[in-house]
Amino acid sequence: MREQNNIFQQKLYSLKETERIVIGIPFDGTVSNRPGARFGPRAIRDASMEIEDYSPYLNKDITNIKIHDAGDIQIPFGYTETTLQIISKNYRQFLEHNKRIIALGGEHLISLPLIEEQYNKYGSDLFVIQFDAHADLRNEYLGVRFSHATVMHHVVDIIGPENYSAIGVRSGTKGEWNIINKQNNYFGGSSLRSFSDFVDSYVTKLSGRKIYITVDIDVFDPSLVSGTGTPEPGGISYNDFIYVLKMISQLDITGVDIVELAPDYDNSGVSAIVGASILREMLII
Amino acid sequence: MREQNNIFQQKLYSLKETERIVIGIPFDGTVSNRPGARFGPRAIRDASMEIEDYSPYLNKDITNIKIHDAGDIQIPFGYTETTLQIISKNYRQFLEHNKRIIALGGEHLISLPLIEEQYNKYGSDLFVIQFDAHADLRNEYLGVRFSHATVMHHVVDIIGPENYSAIGVRSGTKGEWNIINKQNNYFGGSSLRSFSDFVDSYVTKLSGRKIYITVDIDVFDPSLVSGTGTPEPGGISYNDFIYVLKMISQLDITGVDIVELAPDYDNSGVSAIVGASILREMLII
Amino acid sequence: MREQNNIFQQKLYSLKETERIVIGIPFDGTVSNRPGARFGPRAIRDASMEIEDYSPYLNKDITNIKIHDAGDIQIPFGYTETTLQIISKNYRQFLEHNKRIIALGGEHLISLPLIEEQYNKYGSDLFVIQFDAHADLRNEYLGVRFSHATVMHHVVDIIGPENYSAIGVRSGTKGEWNIINKQNNYFGGSSLRSFSDFVDSYVTKLSGRKIYITVDIDVFDPSLVSGTGTPEPGGISYNDFIYVLKMISQLDITGVDIVELAPDYDNSGVSAIVGASILREMLII
Amino acid sequence: MREQNNIFQQKLYSLKETERIVIGIPFDGTVSNRPGARFGPRAIRDASMEIEDYSPYLNKDITNIKIHDAGDIQIPFGYTETTLQIISKNYRQFLEHNKRIIALGGEHLISLPLIEEQYNKYGSDLFVIQFDAHADLRNEYLGVRFSHATVMHHVVDIIGPENYSAIGVRSGTKGEWNIINKQNNYFGGSSLRSFSDFVDSYVTKLSGRKIYITVDIDVFDPSLVSGTGTPEPGGISYNDFIYVLKMISQLDITGVDIVELAPDYDNSGVSAIVGASILREMLII
Amino acid sequence: MREQNNIFQQKLYSLKETERIVIGIPFDGTVSNRPGARFGPRAIRDASMEIEDYSPYLNKDITNIKIHDAGDIQIPFGYTETTLQIISKNYRQFLEHNKRIIALGGEHLISLPLIEEQYNKYGSDLFVIQFDAHADLRNEYLGVRFSHATVMHHVVDIIGPENYSAIGVRSGTKGEWNIINKQNNYFGGSSLRSFSDFVDSYVTKLSGRKIYITVDIDVFDPSLVSGTGTPEPGGISYNDFIYVLKMISQLDITGVDIVELAPDYDNSGVSAIVGASILREMLII
Amino acid sequence: MREQNNIFQQKLYSLKETERIVIGIPFDGTVSNRPGARFGPRAIRDASMEIEDYSPYLNKDITNIKIHDAGDIQIPFGYTETTLQIISKNYRQFLEHNKRIIALGGEHLISLPLIEEQYNKYGSDLFVIQFDAHADLRNEYLGVRFSHATVMHHVVDIIGPENYSAIGVRSGTKGEWNIINKQNNYFGGSSLRSFSDFVDSYVTKLSGRKIYITVDIDVFDPSLVSGTGTPEPGGISYNDFIYVLKMISQLDITGVDIVELAPDYDNSGVSAIVGASILREMLII
Repeated sequence: MREQNNIFQQKLYSLKETERIVIGIPFDGTVSNRPGARFGPRAIRDASMEIEDYSPYLNKDITNIKIHDAGDIQIPFGYTETTLQIISKNYRQFLEHNKRIIALGGEHLISLPLIEEQYNKYGSDLFVIQFDAHADLRNEYLGVRFSHATVMHHVVDIIGPENYSAIGVRSGTKGEWNIINKQNNYFGGSSLRSFSDFVDSYVTKLSGRKIYITVDIDVFDPSLVSGTGTPEPGGISYNDFIYVLKMISQLDITGVDIVELAPDYDNSGVSAIVGASILREMLII
Repeated sequence: MREQNNIFQQKLYSLKETERIVIGIPFDGTVSNRPGARFGPRAIRDASMEIEDYSPYLNKDITNIKIHDAGDIQIPFGYTETTLQIISKNYRQFLEHNKRIIALGGEHLISLPLIEEQYNKYGSDLFVIQFDAHADLRNEYLGVRFSHATVMHHVVDIIGPENYSAIGVRSGTKGEWNIINKQNNYFGGSSLRSFSDFVDSYVTKLSGRKIYITVDIDVFDPSLVSGTGTPEPGGISYNDFIYVLKMISQLDITGVDIVELAPDYDNSGVSAIVGASILREMLII
Repeated sequence: MREQNNIFQQKLYSLKETERIVIGIPFDGTVSNRPGARFGPRAIRDASMEIEDYSPYLNKDITNIKIHDAGDIQIPFGYTETTLQIISKNYRQFLEHNKRIIALGGEHLISLPLIEEQYNKYGSDLFVIQFDAHADLRNEYLGVRFSHATVMHHVVDIIGPENYSAIGVRSGTKGEWNIINKQNNYFGGSSLRSFSDFVDSYVTKLSGRKIYITVDIDVFDPSLVSGTGTPEPGGISYNDFIYVLKMISQLDITGVDIVELAPDYDNSGVSAIVGASILREMLII
Repeated sequence: MREQNNIFQQKLYSLKETERIVIGIPFDGTVSNRPGARFGPRAIRDASMEIEDYSPYLNKDITNIKIHDAGDIQIPFGYTETTLQIISKNYRQFLEHNKRIIALGGEHLISLPLIEEQYNKYGSDLFVIQFDAHADLRNEYLGVRFSHATVMHHVVDIIGPENYSAIGVRSGTKGEWNIINKQNNYFGGSSLRSFSDFVDSYVTKLSGRKIYITVDIDVFDPSLVSGTGTPEPGGISYNDFIYVLKMISQLDITGVDIVELAPDYDNSGVSAIVGASILREMLII
Repeated sequence: MREQNNIFQQKLYSLKETERIVIGIPFDGTVSNRPGARFGPRAIRDASMEIEDYSPYLNKDITNIKIHDAGDIQIPFGYTETTLQIISKNYRQFLEHNKRIIALGGEHLISLPLIEEQYNKYGSDLFVIQFDAHADLRNEYLGVRFSHATVMHHVVDIIGPENYSAIGVRSGTKGEWNIINKQNNYFGGSSLRSFSDFVDSYVTKLSGRKIYITVDIDVFDPSLVSGTGTPEPGGISYNDFIYVLKMISQLDITGVDIVELAPDYDNSGVSAIVGASILREMLII
Repeated sequence: MREQNNIFQQKLYSLKETERIVIGIPFDGTVSNRPGARFGPRAIRDASMEIEDYSPYLNKDITNIKIHDAGDIQIPFGYTETTLQIISKNYRQFLEHNKRIIALGGEHLISLPLIEEQYNKYGSDLFVIQFDAHADLRNEYLGVRFSHATVMHHVVDIIGPENYSAIGVRSGTKGEWNIINKQNNYFGGSSLRSFSDFVDSYVTKLSGRKIYITVDIDVFDPSLVSGTGTPEPGGISYNDFIYVLKMISQLDITGVDIVELAPDYDNSGVSAIVGASILREMLII
């Protein structure tokens, strides 16, 4: 008999032994357009079982990494602020183990309590890299303060605008655009060359910092990832992502999230495979 | 040039002149399984434009009914109780016009403020007919008091258990089942004959009452309506629905809602067509 | 090596030897809602290759029937009246062989030239049985005289209202309804019992007549056939169809068409399988 | 944190404590038309988590049944006979525990080793009830002896033709039809009444026997279950299934399989929900 | 209550006040492969409501542009030449207002009457830029003179071959290829660099001309836009499009059309979002 | 009447007259993830009928090439080694005609008997170019020796590691990676420039050799080709493919296969169009 399937069909470890912690946070309560990011964790775990162990990009094998899969945080439906508190409380307990935590969303708002807890732990050492199609820098959205469209506004309030940088943003209000342009945003319309220049320059500045990476999966062009709530044309390719991945592979990454995968909008299953591929690299890196 | 499309491609009327009011309530914040009922109002309005004006079942033409389409109530994402208050406040204003209101959900929880306002207006005259696959009678669900799985519990608290009846329920806890079986539930597993007996018997009791009808679209067998959050096999057919429709066509119907249509789960578009077909009959009846 | 696939994977015959002629008429130029019936012939031929040779309903095997597949009539796009003439001219040549012809649509308007040519040949002996969700009896539709919504109006003009009967119609204007109700329409909302009474009574009247059967595939409930331009809930089941099939199996059927299959709206492929299943029975009967 | 998801979100038991054993057999190597039944076990387990614990049909709650989920048998791809031996060997070990085993296919050929092992254990006490659209009684199919189209031929060779009965078969060769008609097949085209007569009569004969039930999910009408390799119109409804379920609920059921669910052909997810619903009833019954 | 949804959720203006006119032309009567471009206008309007107001590419906000949405022109089905006359007549009336008109197709043939009317107004000042995968330069197609495969042949007859240029063409007959290669076609297989050279060179020549832009949405690679009748691999990316957009942003654009979006072939909704994104830029530019 | 549809709607030729032979090999028995490559030949033939005759990339017209379509090889389901023998035997007979043979898979394992037969004929002159996302170089996979994951291991055993080269591989075990990196693999993550360098360098070495090209369609980025069993992000674009195509257009190509197209996973139909486009180029080149 085959053993029960686990993430990446790997032997899993206890919290004590592990090097990496994976948690699912299936919350999509503030998604304003197409919901379904709640199914992200399940889709990524399922897709992870069809993916090769070895990453040729990082030249490492996931079987050499000890992983603990903590399952999903249980979310009450319809209560955003309570939800944020539950996420914070759970995440704090995992943070104490001093292992890299990869959170699987869920929508982008889940990054707020995660980054807040990272900041509580690491203080001004923390630097946030945001992969995203949207600036997410609004003050409020449709009358709501805590929303996947305002998440980075709150993050910036906590960590300071000089401690984050964005990649792939190509949608926002004029007001958001004024901010994002100052934050080293790589804008989708540029040529490949200027993109690598941009990445080169900022990676060198980050040595010694604690790095938190938030990957809103809509950063990818919707040709590749159509299974997301608010697809936006003009995104990065998978090879662009790998390019950045290699650049940042020497940094000290303490937290990661992969958010906004809404798998039911992509019948081909490719979006979930991309999510699982990113997870593999983020576990290995 | 063709005029802008309207519901059923009809001339629409002002609130003053109208006989029927249609409002959309695109809230799906407590849906525990597959979300997307927020797209119900748009899908029903779109599908209404492909449907014949005349109902052979009721032998009337929708062009003879004056309709006001009040658009959609704007919902803040992630705040259930605020949302319920907003719905109540809006609905109350429409109720004052003493016209039949057909609300397009959204999820089933929206029925709670609607029925509460109807009860505030009509008191013990009110009788509620629930078309549904699920009892929705729980005290709480996943730690949440107000949920699409508890809506009828709260409704029963308001109107009393003797003032509602259910059709098509085939899923619930044992506790819910003890309640629903007393409330004249027609249970899916019966033969067509016992179904008509059931309907016959209770319609005669309702003469003189104010009738509120809540149609959770998952009452239909998922062979017909797959575009809903929690499909449940063993449902009623469209002809079963028409049978009941004719039986209740003499009653004094003051409010209707059509809920839980999540059109993105049915690529064929049939679920939305069923939603629009029900809307036509509920406007005409 | 397997031989090239043919319809039902059968050995095909020349026009001279054949007992049945199959032609495809991939025209959908007047479809007002969802187009794509042009793909009906290809989808039915493809699906025919997955279907059993033997019909337990008619207790005969398709391998005992000699079939000629005449391929598809080439249609100019965008010229309805020219198209009708091309169809007439082609069909006339096949009619001369005195074999039953099964035409695969395409939209319902193609039935008009086919029935007209049958009438030219058989005169008042001809009787038309229409399976359909829609009456298709309008004088004109959206300013157009020849349309899939007017086809039966023109048919009735040719053969006289007493020489046709409809099964499954459940959508029409009030004007159409007044006509269709007189023409022995079986209306979807009735019970199974009254349906069999209806079929029994009219079959006995048709002995000795030349029968033309037009099957608009939207006669079926959209739970079974969602791949059609204008699905309409409340349709007949496949077993209802088989019931009628057996009743009419002694009649002298000279022509059949199967129309309005738009396979791209049904990703599951079931609608095309139903089309091919009907084709098998119409070849065998 | 929510515990890892399990089948029906239940606490699972060890082989020793359990009352029911569930095993997945993801083999679809002889499927001649649309493959993908290998994904049946995963789809049923996933869907089981969205389904109510309580069965109103059987008036029991699945939380009162002790279940052991043995995971999936690992299948080598492309070696049918080796596969059958692996299945036999695994199944035999579970059979020794004298608990009802519910196997999740995979294709219908997996029933052959399962029934053979049941026969080795129970001998002439064994009676097989086959729910199926297809007779599956061929000697060979496309030159292959062991195939999902020949499985019942081999079963009949083992148990004798008088020890099995079929429900819902509506497709086969003329040769198969001669056999199946003798085996108390309920044929799809009959009325509801004759169906219940049929079920009534044969259930009474089965008291005292060991019952094995094989549910080929294509027994259902493809309106409900489109996610299967060879859909066949004219199938039974879910309520028909429940009718039989209640009739046989007093019998001594020692083995069950649920086969031919190919979930990827049904984007709506309904087919998998039907599979999980059947599993619930087969665990509870 | 939220106001009725409008294009881009904007306040709309009367013809007198407006700066831009949007009209839908839902005609797809000559489409030879997959139809459904008739649903383009509805899909673009729906998708426009999910898109940000601000264009970072053009650094302008759509809320600063006054838009009149004239709705859809009503098209008779099946009569190509009548249709072309109706389109001409309607368009002429809008042209008189001297505002930029953005027409939403519908198929590519609709560009013929639009460009003809622009030519009647602007004469030899008019220059046409064609974004397209296909040359559309045939004399006739399948025996038909006016077709989406011949539209640019007729356009060239009117404006002269020196007054148009094509971008992205990668499919045609050898005869078409001889013509298109002379017309400054950017051919998909080239590198990004030669592409920018090409665009640079021709934009400078167009200063002072009246520019008409026809965007056949199949110019994009089908990885991004699969919802079109005749997808052709090797197309441009969205960023390529933005590159050209910026180059031509100083030109005097009097008319635009966006054609061949057949949204039903893309279940993910991305194709419609691309259509709405182009519309935003064409309104703002 | 239109003649029966043929591949590319071309007049087909006998084996004697032909310049190219097309055969379908609908085998997918060892596919470990998503099956369905058996439908590749049918999907490519269907899609070929919607594609232009002329290739602007190669400046030739397919109407100038004489093609023989030999239909599909009949495969027994579930017997891998027998299948390989059947393929070998059939292919050998075609090879005797000394025409280029283009085989349409089916899964990648079919390349093994094809290349073996080519090697038997051409010996050490043979050079194999593999387009693929996966190395396919394992010794065995899930306990099975002959599998689509081991095919290139067996090929290398036959032709020697110096006689093959891979393009686009981006997935494998560490062991496979050590081999593939020596075989001139172009790795997906590189820039366009290094890709062209790579192709340039190896094409010059191949003059005078007999070239066999195996195109596993998952070499393309899944944004373009989602209809395949194991999509892997980071693949080549269609223009990358055309770039290589032109480079190798002077070589002496004796055999080609196009494998792993599983069309049912791409509802948009684009994957099949890509398959047919490659077939056109491989016939013309």
